[in-house]
Amino acid sequence: MTANEAILLLSGGLDSATVAGLLRRDGRVLHALSFDYGQRHQNELDYARAVAQTMGVASHRILKIDLGGLGGSALTDAALAVPETGVGEGIPITYVPARNTVFLSYALALAEVLGVTDIYVGVNSQDYSGYPDCRPAFIDAFNHLAAVATKLGVEGAAPQIHAPLQQLRKAGIIRAGLDVGVDYSLTRSCYQLDSAGRSCGRCDACRLRLAAFAELGIADPAPYR
Amino acid sequence: MTANEAILLLSGGLDSATVAGLLRRDGRVLHALSFDYGQRHQNELDYARAVAQTMGVASHRILKIDLGGLGGSALTDAALAVPETGVGEGIPITYVPARNTVFLSYALALAEVLGVTDIYVGVNSQDYSGYPDCRPAFIDAFNHLAAVATKLGVEGAAPQIHAPLQQLRKAGIIRAGLDVGVDYSLTRSCYQLDSAGRSCGRCDACRLRLAAFAELGIADPAPYR
Repeated sequence: MTANEAILLLSGGLDSATVAGLLRRDGRVLHALSFDYGQRHQNELDYARAVAQTMGVASHRILKIDLGGLGGSALTDAALAVPETGVGEGIPITYVPARNTVFLSYALALAEVLGVTDIYVGVNSQDYSGYPDCRPAFIDAFNHLAAVATKLGVEGAAPQIHAPLQQLRKAGIIRAGLDVGVDYSLTRSCYQLDSAGRSCGRCDACRLRLAAFAELGIADPAPYR
Repeated sequence: MTANEAILLLSGGLDSATVAGLLRRDGRVLHALSFDYGQRHQNELDYARAVAQTMGVASHRILKIDLGGLGGSALTDAALAVPETGVGEGIPITYVPARNTVFLSYALALAEVLGVTDIYVGVNSQDYSGYPDCRPAFIDAFNHLAAVATKLGVEGAAPQIHAPLQQLRKAGIIRAGLDVGVDYSLTRSCYQLDSAGRSCGRCDACRLRLAAFAELGIADPAPYR
């Protein structure tokens, strides 16, 4: 264990790729953690692998977990349609129940196993407009939990969740990532990615991503169908 | 959704069977949740199924999750020996990193999917002498997290974790369970259960269980090898 090591939740999307880029710039030794959770856009894991490789991570674990088996989200239940009519108010049907709580719980387990106390996630202000488990209050509550839930915490070195993008919107995230050499052609954000890795351009995640690149006056290097 | 429904983490051990018995007495409709997490004593799930059946639960989900893949515990890593020399000080090697945090995260996800806000766990004072994620401070922190992490919480009906055995020792738990008709011959506590379902009698879990039955002057109805 060294203080230079860090655990990163890596999804294949642009947020976590940006966090990886920032940590690489800082010379951190990264342990990436991804989840095969029954998501319909399962090939997002191919992009998580590609990002992990270009970032030179020290390890990359992909855990197969049974979250889809619980149902209740358009992202894990093929019977529920992904909305294509634009980003609305309230908590969307694409919310996967307690997903970030589950993901961070595994990160906490990995922190215990590796003796690494810094855990990074890519949640940001545009996510938490819709999903409860992306908001600052959630990260704060999880940090409090981490201090009492772990052997590390009991021994005085509690794991800490860091969300360095929390105050940023998508355009700011992309700008920060470009500054540290993140290759966004390796990332995907679409909830309905096709088997060739092309995005739909119509789901909420695509809309947010395309609007951000447009705001920056840059073409999104990822392919659309 | 009705307020009469409840989610229960069910392990096949005597604590969660006791909670199931108390909830059955109260006429609650139970949704049991168990985990196949790479535990070496995997046939404990057969006992979880037996308890679920006798308790007449409305549903029983067994989620296969990849916790053993992270390593670091004698309960999931065959390379680490289960101690047999008696219950010691500190956090034992049988501690599975962040196990209860992971389990309760899934319970939170199920709460969201079912719209059920009461979640019951069998943690108790003898567990939390050794494991950080069984202590009252952990349950309190998780309840705070549940309020901010979920759609239910945001909408004003936060899921609540209940640990009705928290103040009890094993003998008190067994006495409470016998009062409500729990059949402890269907439960197992051993970390090294053999394929015939016989307990070792020497691991910490067996020692605590046998001492509790002895304290009550009752023979443990479960078989030992």
